[in-house]
Amino acid sequence: MTTLIGAGLAVDVQAGAGAHAHAPDAAYRAAGANTTPDHPAGRTEVVISVQPPTPAEAARLREGDITISFLQPNLERELVEVLRDRGVTSFSLDLLPRVTRAQAADALSSQALVAGYRAVVEAVHRLPKFLPMFTTAAGTVPPAKVLVLGAGVAGLQAIATARRLGAVVEAYDVRAAAKEEVRSLGAKFVELDLETQDGVYAQAQSETFLERQRELIAERVAASDVVITTAAVPGRTAPVLVTADMLKTMAPGSVVVDLAAESGGNVTASVAGEDTWVGDVLVHGARNMPSSMPAHASKLYARNVANLLLMMTSDGEVRPDLDDEVLGGCCLTHAGELRRELP
Amino acid sequence: MTTLIGAGLAVDVQAGAGAHAHAPDAAYRAAGANTTPDHPAGRTEVVISVQPPTPAEAARLREGDITISFLQPNLERELVEVLRDRGVTSFSLDLLPRVTRAQAADALSSQALVAGYRAVVEAVHRLPKFLPMFTTAAGTVPPAKVLVLGAGVAGLQAIATARRLGAVVEAYDVRAAAKEEVRSLGAKFVELDLETQDGVYAQAQSETFLERQRELIAERVAASDVVITTAAVPGRTAPVLVTADMLKTMAPGSVVVDLAAESGGNVTASVAGEDTWVGDVLVHGARNMPSSMPAHASKLYARNVANLLLMMTSDGEVRPDLDDEVLGGCCLTHAGELRRELP
Repeated sequence: MTTLIGAGLAVDVQAGAGAHAHAPDAAYRAAGANTTPDHPAGRTEVVISVQPPTPAEAARLREGDITISFLQPNLERELVEVLRDRGVTSFSLDLLPRVTRAQAADALSSQALVAGYRAVVEAVHRLPKFLPMFTTAAGTVPPAKVLVLGAGVAGLQAIATARRLGAVVEAYDVRAAAKEEVRSLGAKFVELDLETQDGVYAQAQSETFLERQRELIAERVAASDVVITTAAVPGRTAPVLVTADMLKTMAPGSVVVDLAAESGGNVTASVAGEDTWVGDVLVHGARNMPSSMPAHASKLYARNVANLLLMMTSDGEVRPDLDDEVLGGCCLTHAGELRRELP
Repeated sequence: MTTLIGAGLAVDVQAGAGAHAHAPDAAYRAAGANTTPDHPAGRTEVVISVQPPTPAEAARLREGDITISFLQPNLERELVEVLRDRGVTSFSLDLLPRVTRAQAADALSSQALVAGYRAVVEAVHRLPKFLPMFTTAAGTVPPAKVLVLGAGVAGLQAIATARRLGAVVEAYDVRAAAKEEVRSLGAKFVELDLETQDGVYAQAQSETFLERQRELIAERVAASDVVITTAAVPGRTAPVLVTADMLKTMAPGSVVVDLAAESGGNVTASVAGEDTWVGDVLVHGARNMPSSMPAHASKLYARNVANLLLMMTSDGEVRPDLDDEVLGGCCLTHAGELRRELP
């Protein structure tokens, strides 16, 4: 906010936008913004949001207006057509190139950080046991065993948080190259005894590979008090990694948190936003984890989009250079054209 | 269980007793116990429970029967009379002497350990922020500030858990002598600038002392994201440490967990078992924290009572020696006599 105003931009905030994140309208006004009762589509040149505008809101945008949001093109075909036809320049944070210059705008990573931390908080809150080891006068309580499937940003943050709390953590990733990162956080990397090439299992996706992976995961799930699955790819259906049969092998009271629940789930039983008992094992299907950490999730997102906007701003004017690797890479529609093929 | 059976005792478990702790009846039978449908009062020589028996259950006990539970004599006058009149030998874990030999039976401490850990879990689950500091490509998120009031077993465990998660922690205790323990956990001890004598503030409970304490707590509450209050003494009304006026000075979204809510509360607004918003600050009144960590709370409690029972058992016979410092110290009624004055 202050960043944008400092760059010479005028800022409108839709009234109540920050209420859930404990940021009242008065705080935005104090920082120099206007607050307005309605969605700003058609009144401001740039519209920034978390979720993309609806097709109806997009229909109010004018030629040359700019939108920035988490827009998943393959799930929003109608919206994409409206944006294209109205000549809107739309940027999707889902499409941001993974290059160094783009890191300060990388909202997928910042929100995955929130989700990974929060996954452990949700698990710990449901677990009838301690995470840390305790040595008391009446004897020792062993540390909980946590298994993390998928070692991307969310998975690594889940590992780090569970380690902070004293759990014994192991992690698996289909990329054998994730081993060093996992180990550097004090967790054990679960390895398939298959050959790797350039850090990737050579037979990945072969029948042998999938069978061995299934066996290995089944064995580690059975030995865990907590399983956190993080194998989600935006816009695609998540792979099923943990089956109902595997859940039945866990100790009573064990907890599974599925961060991929919104995209089909890494756990067969999971339902986004719900807790499901499978026998005596509790499966939590995550839904919009960042909204359960609104203050910091919002702060990180705000910095990300402000950084992206600053990359297209000079002298108080927003004029994106689409030849720029980062801006061009995450631009979806511009001047009546769709800039990438929809899958 | 196995400990008791190993000592030559036969064990009956009321059916369903372990259900909430994920311990099914079959597990008790596998360990060598019988499971019985009813409360065992009148059928076994020793009755062990968490809560004391009801007066009706106690009326079924026979002369010389033994009970072990958390019995708060000043809250259970009717029960105490029944136990006395029936010639029951009753032991209360609330009365256990604080001597080295009693530590392995110290259930108040083991359950306070659970409560202190759990207080942080409850706070973290409600906080819209991270506890740890994060350094991201988009900038740094500072660590949360946690204030712990009361540095007994629960308070120290809350400090340790919040520190594990990377929070900046400070703590206050009316006993200035708690300073070293607080510091050894990496937290700051909040000090009153008043003289101390033998580790206790010399003017404790004077008007000056209370006023300075109130000012100091008000100042530290205002600076905190999380406040955890732990100043509870079993059977007594808890002192009010945090007022509604203090809550109003906290940042929006801050969280207060009151471990003393069941005994009147250290926070004016707290209600046991409920979440209360005071302005934009969330106050959680704790209720029976150990039951939210049933697996480990139950395991620690079981070890404590088993250790106490073993102190009165030899050759498979339970014969408490009430001249023993520990057993005599926590014995409330015996042979028709009340062994300590009720307050």
